[in-house]
Amino acid sequence: MTKQKKYLLPENEIPTQWYNIMADMPNKPLPPIHPQTHKPLTWQDLAHIFPEECSKQELDMEHEWIDIPEEVLDKYRFYRSTPLVRAYELEKALGTPAHIYFKNESVNPLGSHKINSALPQCYYAKQEGTTNVTTETGAGQWGMALSYAAKIFGLECAVYQVKITMQQKPYRSSVMRTFGAAVTGSPSMSTRAGKDIITKDPLHPGSLGTAISEAVELATTTPHCKYVLGSVLNHVGLHQTIIGLEAEKQMQMAGEYPDTVIACFGGGSNFGGIAFPFMRHNISGERHTEFIAAEPNSCPKLTRGKFQYDFGDEAGYTPLLPMFTLGHQFKPSNIHAGGLRYHGAGMIVSQLIKDKMMHGVDIPQLESFESGMLFARTEGIIPAPESCHAIAATIREAKKCKETGEQKVILFCLSGHGLIDMPSYEQFISGDLQNYTVSDEEIERNVSELEPIIKE
Amino acid sequence: MTKQKKYLLPENEIPTQWYNIMADMPNKPLPPIHPQTHKPLTWQDLAHIFPEECSKQELDMEHEWIDIPEEVLDKYRFYRSTPLVRAYELEKALGTPAHIYFKNESVNPLGSHKINSALPQCYYAKQEGTTNVTTETGAGQWGMALSYAAKIFGLECAVYQVKITMQQKPYRSSVMRTFGAAVTGSPSMSTRAGKDIITKDPLHPGSLGTAISEAVELATTTPHCKYVLGSVLNHVGLHQTIIGLEAEKQMQMAGEYPDTVIACFGGGSNFGGIAFPFMRHNISGERHTEFIAAEPNSCPKLTRGKFQYDFGDEAGYTPLLPMFTLGHQFKPSNIHAGGLRYHGAGMIVSQLIKDKMMHGVDIPQLESFESGMLFARTEGIIPAPESCHAIAATIREAKKCKETGEQKVILFCLSGHGLIDMPSYEQFISGDLQNYTVSDEEIERNVSELEPIIKE
Repeated sequence: MTKQKKYLLPENEIPTQWYNIMADMPNKPLPPIHPQTHKPLTWQDLAHIFPEECSKQELDMEHEWIDIPEEVLDKYRFYRSTPLVRAYELEKALGTPAHIYFKNESVNPLGSHKINSALPQCYYAKQEGTTNVTTETGAGQWGMALSYAAKIFGLECAVYQVKITMQQKPYRSSVMRTFGAAVTGSPSMSTRAGKDIITKDPLHPGSLGTAISEAVELATTTPHCKYVLGSVLNHVGLHQTIIGLEAEKQMQMAGEYPDTVIACFGGGSNFGGIAFPFMRHNISGERHTEFIAAEPNSCPKLTRGKFQYDFGDEAGYTPLLPMFTLGHQFKPSNIHAGGLRYHGAGMIVSQLIKDKMMHGVDIPQLESFESGMLFARTEGIIPAPESCHAIAATIREAKKCKETGEQKVILFCLSGHGLIDMPSYEQFISGDLQNYTVSDEEIERNVSELEPIIKE
Repeated sequence: MTKQKKYLLPENEIPTQWYNIMADMPNKPLPPIHPQTHKPLTWQDLAHIFPEECSKQELDMEHEWIDIPEEVLDKYRFYRSTPLVRAYELEKALGTPAHIYFKNESVNPLGSHKINSALPQCYYAKQEGTTNVTTETGAGQWGMALSYAAKIFGLECAVYQVKITMQQKPYRSSVMRTFGAAVTGSPSMSTRAGKDIITKDPLHPGSLGTAISEAVELATTTPHCKYVLGSVLNHVGLHQTIIGLEAEKQMQMAGEYPDTVIACFGGGSNFGGIAFPFMRHNISGERHTEFIAAEPNSCPKLTRGKFQYDFGDEAGYTPLLPMFTLGHQFKPSNIHAGGLRYHGAGMIVSQLIKDKMMHGVDIPQLESFESGMLFARTEGIIPAPESCHAIAATIREAKKCKETGEQKVILFCLSGHGLIDMPSYEQFISGDLQNYTVSDEEIERNVSELEPIIKE
């Protein structure tokens, strides 16, 4: 028997509850605020836009564990558990004494972790009598997952995809169409929000912020249509905790516990998914794991953003959320990690950063692809450009271990594969990719335009 | 506990031997023949081109079970076992009483079954002191798998990719380059064979036959370079039996045994992989499973080809093989299932067809995509265009069961996913795909040009 590389859970060991970190946080997140009344939102306010059950989960500070509906579990079992993998080949290539593990969320038919939340959101929407769902998508991973989940729960699905990533990753729109979704590039002329944006800036490449505005507008102007979101919000992170809860059991199978947990960071869904279940042992004082969120240095809300109430979208349709933000009108550079091109961090993560329970690192685009290439050539999996950021942060940590001789146990989330992102790799190989940076002035300009409802 | 959808083997249940059906066949395949001397080939003859161990396996009529080297098992464990899945959603959509299972070989980082043979071939090559491997690839699935396997065993890799599929599926060449391979479109001007083809037909779209000629030429004119093949040959089918051996154990877990086993058919590797282990119980008389190989109706060697000695490649560099063939200069239509665009069937399968132990069905391109779309929308997996043929054949069988009321157990091999084939789906959705046919005259013309060494 050789050393084990891959750990899977038997079906009866797949977790049946999600973990709600809000119930355990020493300092709760500040409440989301109504943009007109400036009063804290109730779940009833949220339920105008989102499925009711998701709205309740969004504000639930009480229940540590939330049951996964049987119908969702039934779909989870199709592709879960996902493997926990020891990256022996990567370790060898780096010559590090660190033990590197990754939770492989790319091993499902949709190719990323996004399906974990698409399934419950569509399930709840269907239960509540909704017939249509609409959403935004950046790189397209969320849009793919939602298109499929909507199809199997019998919902119509309309997706606004960020225009620039639609061009960079055309295959993802094809996948959504194959699953029966209607896909529109954002900003588009099909909504008031889109028209306003295009009028001001005809060449606007789109961002998650613009696409959210358009999807929210469609949802609020269409009967029986709910808006669903793939990241940022608390209930999305909640659904993703299935990742970390499985990983915890699988690390036990491997006889180890992570010293460091790393994930890439766009809105926070895969980060929260892998990190929160482990973080509960930090909160209880049992463990002292380090949590690192890897963001692109061209969209650095965690490392250089301001903590302030801000909108989740470009047009200002969403509730105001307490977040580390670059300003909701910040236009991220056209990096290939489309899923990380978002101006703000979710409210849970923002509070955790304030409380120094985790921290961000910023990764230049070229370092992310260089790291992804090394991972591909050692572990055989071409990572999504988003996941390359987690790999880059992992490699930095593993190299530190090489210097210090520490045998740290590092766990990262491989949030998705990059098979649909090959033009990005092709450009990297050809030397056609570049690094982007963002100046302090640009961040300051965008943030200072925000209405200071609650200032830190 | 809901009904189980997915069956996985514990690591210690993954088979440690491949199954060699030649040892059990009542009528052995005729021997491959030297193109000059017209004498049966020895393994030493083959070893001029192929790795030595593969050459021995190619002619082994003796050993029913062949040990998988520990180093290969070690790599297999990274992604194996692959799931056996009960396609409940597809069954529901078809309203069939049939139980449909699929063996999901798309769930590995390379996205198809091809890695199962790429790993041992590279392992053997490396062991024997080879430094370079070269191959052909059609759709690119084999090229991807080989590029990765070569990289992890420390070999340089050169791939000749069929020109038309390189254009149809550019992402696959990018994947190969990401893994460090050199990729050339075939026919190319880099070999004598390629030049000859282009001189006669400057717009030749390429085929597996042309690419094989070029790769064989490179191998035989380069020191320490071996040619490796992704299908057709006996040893490739041997390595792929890991699929069926796992599936047999997993069907036991599900408490069923297949009445029908179906796979798509290009050269025969995924077909042999899933079928041969089950076929041994037909040979012994214990079972009476039906075996169906699904080929495109535009490249119908199984259903309309002639049994005759023929070359494996366009230029006539390979040994002469006893095969059902359309003639080695047959130019298949530009269907999107690039992996099925091959003029001949492997010698084992050809013998099995003669002996009526299996049969072929031919599937029009549009039916294949229509079936693939239904599968995607029910099971969430976008199948490779090749695998769509297996799905189409499965759906035909499941519909027959609906008519007769029979509760047949159907098992098919999902040989790969189609995420890199999205332009094909896009064309299908837009109505831009067509059916192709081939006339009896065209088949007769190509076959009649063959030198009748041994005629049936």
